[in-house]
Amino acid sequence: MQPRTIMNNVAILDHEQTITRGHIKISNGTITEVSDEPFVPKSSLEDQDIVYDHEGKLLMPGLVNTHMHMPMSILRGVSDDLPLDRWLKEVIWPLEGKMTREMARAGIGLSLVESIRSGTTAFSDMYHLGRDDAHELAVSSGLKAQLTRGMITAFSNEQENEQKLQQASEFAKAMNNDSSGRLRGALFPHAPYTNSLSFLHRVRDVAKNDQLDVQIHIAETAKEVEEHVQQFGKRPVEHLLGEEIIGQGSLLVHSVHVSDDELEQMREANVSVSHNPQSNLKLGSGIAPVEKMVDKEIVVSLGTDSAASNNTLDVFTEMRQAAMLHKGTSNRADAITADDAFKMATVNGSKSIGFHKSGLIKEGYDADFILLDANTPHLQPYRHRVGTVVYAANKTDVTDVYVNGQAVMQNRVIVTLDEEKLLYEANRAQQELLGIHE
Amino acid sequence: MQPRTIMNNVAILDHEQTITRGHIKISNGTITEVSDEPFVPKSSLEDQDIVYDHEGKLLMPGLVNTHMHMPMSILRGVSDDLPLDRWLKEVIWPLEGKMTREMARAGIGLSLVESIRSGTTAFSDMYHLGRDDAHELAVSSGLKAQLTRGMITAFSNEQENEQKLQQASEFAKAMNNDSSGRLRGALFPHAPYTNSLSFLHRVRDVAKNDQLDVQIHIAETAKEVEEHVQQFGKRPVEHLLGEEIIGQGSLLVHSVHVSDDELEQMREANVSVSHNPQSNLKLGSGIAPVEKMVDKEIVVSLGTDSAASNNTLDVFTEMRQAAMLHKGTSNRADAITADDAFKMATVNGSKSIGFHKSGLIKEGYDADFILLDANTPHLQPYRHRVGTVVYAANKTDVTDVYVNGQAVMQNRVIVTLDEEKLLYEANRAQQELLGIHE
Repeated sequence: MQPRTIMNNVAILDHEQTITRGHIKISNGTITEVSDEPFVPKSSLEDQDIVYDHEGKLLMPGLVNTHMHMPMSILRGVSDDLPLDRWLKEVIWPLEGKMTREMARAGIGLSLVESIRSGTTAFSDMYHLGRDDAHELAVSSGLKAQLTRGMITAFSNEQENEQKLQQASEFAKAMNNDSSGRLRGALFPHAPYTNSLSFLHRVRDVAKNDQLDVQIHIAETAKEVEEHVQQFGKRPVEHLLGEEIIGQGSLLVHSVHVSDDELEQMREANVSVSHNPQSNLKLGSGIAPVEKMVDKEIVVSLGTDSAASNNTLDVFTEMRQAAMLHKGTSNRADAITADDAFKMATVNGSKSIGFHKSGLIKEGYDADFILLDANTPHLQPYRHRVGTVVYAANKTDVTDVYVNGQAVMQNRVIVTLDEEKLLYEANRAQQELLGIHE
Repeated sequence: MQPRTIMNNVAILDHEQTITRGHIKISNGTITEVSDEPFVPKSSLEDQDIVYDHEGKLLMPGLVNTHMHMPMSILRGVSDDLPLDRWLKEVIWPLEGKMTREMARAGIGLSLVESIRSGTTAFSDMYHLGRDDAHELAVSSGLKAQLTRGMITAFSNEQENEQKLQQASEFAKAMNNDSSGRLRGALFPHAPYTNSLSFLHRVRDVAKNDQLDVQIHIAETAKEVEEHVQQFGKRPVEHLLGEEIIGQGSLLVHSVHVSDDELEQMREANVSVSHNPQSNLKLGSGIAPVEKMVDKEIVVSLGTDSAASNNTLDVFTEMRQAAMLHKGTSNRADAITADDAFKMATVNGSKSIGFHKSGLIKEGYDADFILLDANTPHLQPYRHRVGTVVYAANKTDVTDVYVNGQAVMQNRVIVTLDEEKLLYEANRAQQELLGIHE
């Protein structure tokens, strides 16, 4: 018999079930049993069983962040209240130009610490710098990760661009074949407005040849869509779908300004969407038509975007915002329900970035879960409901994080990374980058 | 010389200043000095000085919640994703009909604990039950509070209604004269649609006679406004302003559906607004035109509404939502800035509910402040900015709460109330009310 870990005396919740007091069994990183009764050993415990008593806690799938830029966490707070184009051109791009590999690494470490403390068990990260560091630190962190080498090619020559594409493709394949089994790769051209159409065609061909999925920032602002229509006579989503640059397996990040026709085409093409409600709000980009996406059964997941435009990597607040915001724009209190938002933050997220056996507390699924302290005042009373988790829970309620049955955080102590060192390095990196000494 | 308390080696922030490392001095509940240098005793410390070292913490004004219904916290999570009218009629009012005084008291205790843990130093509470308990517990809590006896009179006879008004007025005067000096009163007829116009005239007359301010839920939903126009030929805000039922000193709760004309009248009348963005979103009521209010310099503050429609009493998330939401609806990243939102949550809130010397870290102001652990990952780096507090801080960062220089919470331990007992009672009350046994 395999050694088993048993999480006992715990409330269990996913978007399909609620158990007030039960247990789960884990073997080889997989959930082997979910029970609505506490575990009681028949005679004496098997020697190899480890039983944790989680009285007063709530066990649920870990949250999935389908879009972030880890190195940018050292830019948290450098610029608020500017629109996307000015924010990029006046503040972010000039600072990124000065970012060293060491600074990028510091941002990655900070992001991983924050993600773990926020109950994230899997994420997707795009950036052009620090990919080897992202690889190394993601493996160390114990989390599941899709890591991509982002590509902006509008300002470099063809040879350089081809090199970026080869690097991105090699990196993506290395991720898919990583020995940890916890990594995924994809091709991520930054956006239609930062890459030429001919380069996007090259991305399409390489993706097809190397069997890689494609992600892209698209239809983020009205301005982007207008300029795309001026240049190509088509809206960006319909255009790239028509050119087969995006399609089955693609993750469309933002998709704020998409027409009803485009939504129908997205459904037919079976693409998924990374909805980043807070980043879109903060940059004044607008509000994505998520209610319509859900009606069409397009797979919508949630992303925080970078900490420079959010300003946190907290999927709990994205989940709550997703449930709140679209009620407000539609004047309908059931526009996006708590269940819808919970699904976006868990099983839809896992699916969208290539982890198909994750996001449910279910036999045969990977043991990717978090534990919440359900005794905190803001969850009282009535604490074992999806609605209470979506509308009231806080990332700081998270006490434990497990991925593939392995502990990443236990009783609020991160066991995979040196948190103190990583925070120190993040502060030092920002001081160097900005010349700030607080 | 008066005994002094000195908060030393601390970052200090309000909407007028940022100090990276300084100190404040407090005497008799008042801030007597704010310095951007650490405190260094000249020779030996005066015996009576108490010096706290707050290295790594951030000191800022406490947050102000200008609208809640404390007893309803025991209804947290009972109903999600229903619109206001169905939510009230199908779920909330039937349950409230069964709420005993003991249950209301349990909800009040839970709300106070949650408010303290959320960094709230002053609040406004309206309900019809448990006012003596609210009085007693608010005094014990150490917080500043405006307490009102809410009035719904559309379903009772004139004699009963007159009795409610007398009770409300007596209670309001008692609050204004409370020996703690930390309480305020006001008259709070629930809404135009739950009180007849003739009753609202009585409220006006009593308010004038007894020198009491008036608060009211108004223009919360489009349906309310439509029905008001049908019945009276006028929109509710313009109508009640014209009848002088509301005016100088009044706090208009919600004000979601107000016309440009009404906004101008509100400015002229010098009324203030309690903006409850999350409750309005959750009930599908709409999004208040806060950008226009701020442009007109109408005093806007923030309220959580009850935990049954939010589902927390967390002004940090309201502040962030206020800064986020209106950027999205206006497509302008500076629609409501971090500074605007911070002001709403602090000094505007204090002013709106009658605490005029609170909301700034300034000589001569009441020592109403909170301390945040600035070393948490989600505030790193660049942690001493209003923007970072608004967009990234979390209620659970709050470590200490002081009101009039007196500790309410120290190092995350509530020193004024018995938290464990109050949480136990809240759960027991809900079990009794709903017959739930988790």
